[in-house]
Amino acid sequence: METSVLKFGGTSVGDFDKIKEIANELKSRVSRGEKLIVVVSAMGGTTDELLLNANSLSSTPKEDHVALLLTTGEQQTISYLSIILDDLGIRTKAMTGYQAGIKTFGGHMKSRIADIDQKHLEAALDNHDVVVIAGFQGINDEMEITTLGRGGSDTTAVAIAARCNMPCEIYTDVDGVYATDPRVYEEAGRIYEITYDEMMEMSALGAGVLETRCIEIAKNHSIPLYLGRTLSDEKGTWIMEDTQVLERKAVTGVALDSDIIHVTLYEPERESTLIFDLFEKFEAHDINIDMISQVVNSEGFQLSFTVKGNESYRLDEIFEAVERLHPEMVMDVRTNHSKVSIIGSGMRDMTGVASRAFMALQQAGIPFYQTTTSEISISYVVDGEKDRQAVEVLAKKFNL
Amino acid sequence: METSVLKFGGTSVGDFDKIKEIANELKSRVSRGEKLIVVVSAMGGTTDELLLNANSLSSTPKEDHVALLLTTGEQQTISYLSIILDDLGIRTKAMTGYQAGIKTFGGHMKSRIADIDQKHLEAALDNHDVVVIAGFQGINDEMEITTLGRGGSDTTAVAIAARCNMPCEIYTDVDGVYATDPRVYEEAGRIYEITYDEMMEMSALGAGVLETRCIEIAKNHSIPLYLGRTLSDEKGTWIMEDTQVLERKAVTGVALDSDIIHVTLYEPERESTLIFDLFEKFEAHDINIDMISQVVNSEGFQLSFTVKGNESYRLDEIFEAVERLHPEMVMDVRTNHSKVSIIGSGMRDMTGVASRAFMALQQAGIPFYQTTTSEISISYVVDGEKDRQAVEVLAKKFNL
Repeated sequence: METSVLKFGGTSVGDFDKIKEIANELKSRVSRGEKLIVVVSAMGGTTDELLLNANSLSSTPKEDHVALLLTTGEQQTISYLSIILDDLGIRTKAMTGYQAGIKTFGGHMKSRIADIDQKHLEAALDNHDVVVIAGFQGINDEMEITTLGRGGSDTTAVAIAARCNMPCEIYTDVDGVYATDPRVYEEAGRIYEITYDEMMEMSALGAGVLETRCIEIAKNHSIPLYLGRTLSDEKGTWIMEDTQVLERKAVTGVALDSDIIHVTLYEPERESTLIFDLFEKFEAHDINIDMISQVVNSEGFQLSFTVKGNESYRLDEIFEAVERLHPEMVMDVRTNHSKVSIIGSGMRDMTGVASRAFMALQQAGIPFYQTTTSEISISYVVDGEKDRQAVEVLAKKFNL
Repeated sequence: METSVLKFGGTSVGDFDKIKEIANELKSRVSRGEKLIVVVSAMGGTTDELLLNANSLSSTPKEDHVALLLTTGEQQTISYLSIILDDLGIRTKAMTGYQAGIKTFGGHMKSRIADIDQKHLEAALDNHDVVVIAGFQGINDEMEITTLGRGGSDTTAVAIAARCNMPCEIYTDVDGVYATDPRVYEEAGRIYEITYDEMMEMSALGAGVLETRCIEIAKNHSIPLYLGRTLSDEKGTWIMEDTQVLERKAVTGVALDSDIIHVTLYEPERESTLIFDLFEKFEAHDINIDMISQVVNSEGFQLSFTVKGNESYRLDEIFEAVERLHPEMVMDVRTNHSKVSIIGSGMRDMTGVASRAFMALQQAGIPFYQTTTSEISISYVVDGEKDRQAVEVLAKKFNL
């Protein structure tokens, strides 16, 4: 019997009418002979309301107790959806995160899934048509209830699919993955098939439809992953293994990461501990740096990297401290820049992608200040005010 | 270290301000060197709201999913109380029913506690000052979340106290146990000490402050049980073993059960299956009958009993069916009667209680139609319109 994992987010289960529509859709799939595992989030707004309550009771509410509070949101959704499915005559079992065997580790509110003990889940699937599972939650070794942090319900769904070896369908309020953000370049085409690697690069480079960790789990277990709009007839995007993708292109997508800070440091002393001192401070402050490139020559060395624009305040502090240690250092910090990336697993086999992209940007008069490449992506730092134009030029160049 | 179990009901935790007041009271007890296990209900109104939602989604919502839904109410209360206690600097651990090891059996929404696996609870108590536990809920052998039905949170508290051998304090919106309902007889005195047996009779006979099962658990494990008003300086009632009660009276209380139906049946055929046929139907309809007395003589036999007034509709149906089987039967059904009972463990040793009560009622001109006695109680069926007078006469007679 065909069994899939489906996930519906907070907007999709925003009110009882929407939950009823989803229940009817599930019923029609069950009547076609499918069995379904359905992962749901808290009803839209619930989590925010509970967080507001917690913060009204303490300016620093403890994470274990907040996690315990928030998980009631998903528990209510699984109850409501199950009551409706029962009423439609569907044999339904509801399960909280710990009942479904989702074991976590790490901080109470940003836990990661350590393992899934699927025996209860599989037993439930034997006797029911639909098993409804609370997303975003699990239980740790101390038997404490935890939440999975950002994109948590997606992770729940993909991890269960991986453990039970089933395809996973993520339903949300977008039609699928686009070659580039339609808000940036409105002619952007939808991608119907994309490889795990491409999708991971897209996510990491700023196309934030799915958390990278979800795609990683799907990739590691070869689980086909679908992303599409809830209750829509529009075809969404299947994320799958390289070999399964039918139509291979050199470039599949263009990602834009706006508001980044581009930093270049010049240090005449080649033996300087500058890089060590700097990176140590970034790590201590938990600041991510990206696009690191370094050149050493007779003049000393040059280091470039990018940082998210919202780190600007903490950055000043770090730079001041490092400048006191390395007074000869010359620093060039440019805010309001953007990172534009082209992604495509076809780059591995097809030559000339980089040079075609360089040419396109140059011909359009868009200067770029740094370039880094990975196996299946190339990223450019451009001026913030030229980023949309850069996306458009690249999308057109590669027929996206 | 002194450790007690405290229970606060839904009205006591009706809003965040009330929860904060309770947290402050707990803090002052902790600062006096106590450790506390605190059992709480859902915030007043929450359970009704969730039930309303469930019933709006299905006219017959399945009990397993409704139980799952309702338990989110208590889980939210334990989160909120714990966040506040944390903020007051109290080392606090929150636990749902299953985390506290409360194992149940029976229907999902009227489960009974099978056992408490207290190892997590005791470990939590080692490292915390207050352990906050969600009342009214547990987990069954199938790892399904269940609710305990009426008086469920009280049962949670008493069962934990029994398992951990601690006194149990139930806080509610009454000042304690009264010798008789102050709404019926306003001069009724509060009882500061009462035996388990007396309290059980009082509960069973209609003085519904505590469910009988709670008192039974406390009795079986010799756990002192306190009943009093939340955050009040008024002294409440301690329910305890016979030997610990200081001031023994012949009669401790008068209970009133209004709106009962008094039935008497005459059957000339002594070998008739009437009683069998009748009781079988009562059982099939799950109707409780009470105060059963039977007399057999040369004229045949006579059977009297009482039934709750709200069963009137179903009663007619049963009587019609039985009359068809036993056409010689003569039936006398009197609605709008009341049962008035006097309770006191002193009756065991003191003689003449029954005759003093008979006399008092007779002198006051209050006819009674049936009398039944237990070891520590005597019950009378009187006319509904004379029940308050009967309570008053008996309360005065025994100086309550």
